[in-house]
Amino acid sequence: MKIIEGGVVAAKGFKAGGIHCGIRATRTKRDLSLIVSDVKASCAAVYTTNLVKGAPLTVTKAHIADGYAQAVIVNSGNANTCNADGIEIAETMSALAADALGIAASDVVVASTGVIGQPLNIEPIRKGMPQLVKSLSADSCDDAIEGIMTTDTVPKSIAVEFEAGGKTCRMGGIAKGSGMIHPNMATMLVFITTDAAISPEMLQKALSEDVKNTFNMLSVDGDTSTNDNCVVMANGMAGNAVIKEEGEDFTAFMTALNTVNVALSRMIAGDGEGATKLLECKVAGAADEITAKTVAKSVICSSLLKAAMFGADANWGRVLCAIGYSGADVDVNKVDVDFRSAAGTISVCRNGAGIEFSEEEAKKVLLEKEIDILIGLNSGDAEATAWGCDLTYDYVKINGDYRT
Amino acid sequence: MKIIEGGVVAAKGFKAGGIHCGIRATRTKRDLSLIVSDVKASCAAVYTTNLVKGAPLTVTKAHIADGYAQAVIVNSGNANTCNADGIEIAETMSALAADALGIAASDVVVASTGVIGQPLNIEPIRKGMPQLVKSLSADSCDDAIEGIMTTDTVPKSIAVEFEAGGKTCRMGGIAKGSGMIHPNMATMLVFITTDAAISPEMLQKALSEDVKNTFNMLSVDGDTSTNDNCVVMANGMAGNAVIKEEGEDFTAFMTALNTVNVALSRMIAGDGEGATKLLECKVAGAADEITAKTVAKSVICSSLLKAAMFGADANWGRVLCAIGYSGADVDVNKVDVDFRSAAGTISVCRNGAGIEFSEEEAKKVLLEKEIDILIGLNSGDAEATAWGCDLTYDYVKINGDYRT
Repeated sequence: MKIIEGGVVAAKGFKAGGIHCGIRATRTKRDLSLIVSDVKASCAAVYTTNLVKGAPLTVTKAHIADGYAQAVIVNSGNANTCNADGIEIAETMSALAADALGIAASDVVVASTGVIGQPLNIEPIRKGMPQLVKSLSADSCDDAIEGIMTTDTVPKSIAVEFEAGGKTCRMGGIAKGSGMIHPNMATMLVFITTDAAISPEMLQKALSEDVKNTFNMLSVDGDTSTNDNCVVMANGMAGNAVIKEEGEDFTAFMTALNTVNVALSRMIAGDGEGATKLLECKVAGAADEITAKTVAKSVICSSLLKAAMFGADANWGRVLCAIGYSGADVDVNKVDVDFRSAAGTISVCRNGAGIEFSEEEAKKVLLEKEIDILIGLNSGDAEATAWGCDLTYDYVKINGDYRT
Repeated sequence: MKIIEGGVVAAKGFKAGGIHCGIRATRTKRDLSLIVSDVKASCAAVYTTNLVKGAPLTVTKAHIADGYAQAVIVNSGNANTCNADGIEIAETMSALAADALGIAASDVVVASTGVIGQPLNIEPIRKGMPQLVKSLSADSCDDAIEGIMTTDTVPKSIAVEFEAGGKTCRMGGIAKGSGMIHPNMATMLVFITTDAAISPEMLQKALSEDVKNTFNMLSVDGDTSTNDNCVVMANGMAGNAVIKEEGEDFTAFMTALNTVNVALSRMIAGDGEGATKLLECKVAGAADEITAKTVAKSVICSSLLKAAMFGADANWGRVLCAIGYSGADVDVNKVDVDFRSAAGTISVCRNGAGIEFSEEEAKKVLLEKEIDILIGLNSGDAEATAWGCDLTYDYVKINGDYRT
């Protein structure tokens, strides 16, 4: 498997585009995106577990209930959530895209991201549709990425090439997500395309399994969005024998999907609202996987630890504290903690108690942009990784006046 | 019942004092406090549920296992947690206080607050003991309050007078707590004294019941401290018939205790690290109390809502979002939300959807120092209140370099 260029248009038979249609007042950023497959594709999705769900999720769920889809339409600037006419608007969005593309509305995935609770005006979308279709390209998905960004500061895309059934397959994904990011089912908006042939059932299985170890292990601020979802379309144009069961090809597919999802998770964490650092918490030596995940997530979510990382302060007591309140059954007297970055590794805690270390060296390690928090529980073989970011002045600034 | 002056020395037979002994390098703040009863007192306590527990909690638990205590010694500047010699140091602290006061070490409650994982040097405490005892006063507990403060910016104390068994009783409390504050059993350090006569069993019952609705409904940052505890000493010097069972007197006692604890909870929330606003989330119309509490806590803990309140932004979608991911079984289509302050009340959401409101008026309401977030679930009669604060630049600043 190798990393390639192209995001969601890396795979055969996919095009993407994006325009500014006017949902956002400012013209500096695109606000409407479209991803289309030349042929109907197997489609799988995972959604937020928030009880307050964006209307687009309800509509998407119905549209892909048969396991197939051919296009994704998505807007930023408005979440179309907590609005009385939300379902109607989301259905209209699908229908407009379907008409323009000459496909069935029931093959359209629809998504929205932005402010919750403000009515979404369908007119800019209606008017922009011809231009949106015209923007479709098989060479670049840069415009589509821009169209789904909100407080994101960098575009997020990845693609890989892998072998299945003797054929070369490609898979690529794009994502938006910066705040209101917390592991609880799929997070944020993620769209993945692949030309591998796989049945809808195996595609859903692959996605549902993988998000447990990727997007669900990601937190920026502990707030689980109302509009999160992750959608994969597999159009089969690579020509491999359709993956219908577990085996070598499914494993290759899972590996590719995991590579895409880990890369996007890291991009989202590193671009968390206001973030200056990507944090990766790796827990090893846990009695079981649940324990490892619970500990990793608790540490990555601690506001106090996140603020300490922003300050490059090796305050490992906050790591211990977050392990202690995680709810996991851990022997705190066996816990080891190290901090690691490109500048080196520094051990700060052994058997639940502090050890001597050079504050100067610790500072050097923690001033890097990517910090690994390594936790050894010394109670078994299970491992888990979680991703997050530091807590900064800018997170507060961005969210103190998000609507204005 | 009426509010009176005096904090923990308001009740008959209690003295308190505080000094700078040198645990903190800087002499600008006291770092060692003592509270003493003239006679042995019934004693009850609740402790953090964090698996990583400060050594002083273990020692205190053993000392008050018989239901009685006569003094509290507490230091700030060092939590005496995650240290190999923690228990020994905490035992020595008790013994030093006991010797100086001429009481049994097993009647001493010991507590520590500050940095986790740095050895606590007992010498400054040993050397300071004579001066500490000399500082005891029945007239003021200001020095004792200062001695337990860490990042607190205001002293926290309250006292009330109430009737039980035809006698006038008094009860007062002091607290420290600013960061690492999250509802999960008692939070922070809280010391309460009363001259009411009550059995240890009924005192524990009163405390355990009340914290569920007070300190456990409080969150500054979602981090549950390793050293939290709340201790009540009741020395009986008011001369009322000992409260040994439920009834009128116990109810009067519970009311007094609730008044003290609510007042301290509000003070702690309003003085949350970096906070500019006290937030009170009142949930009404819940199907049951658990639902009401779960919703109230989820909303008060949302980083996004806390940042919006800092920015005086009526972003009610974040309230709905936090209700949705709370885990409570709520019909989101029935939810009403209002914001209220001294400047008025503004309705922003009815039946789970936004309603028109004046942004200007909303701004006026939210620019006040104390904001009530009123949530109506319209599904029953249960209610709950939670307290918290806004998320500000200063929270990040304070916690970016806490140890240095």
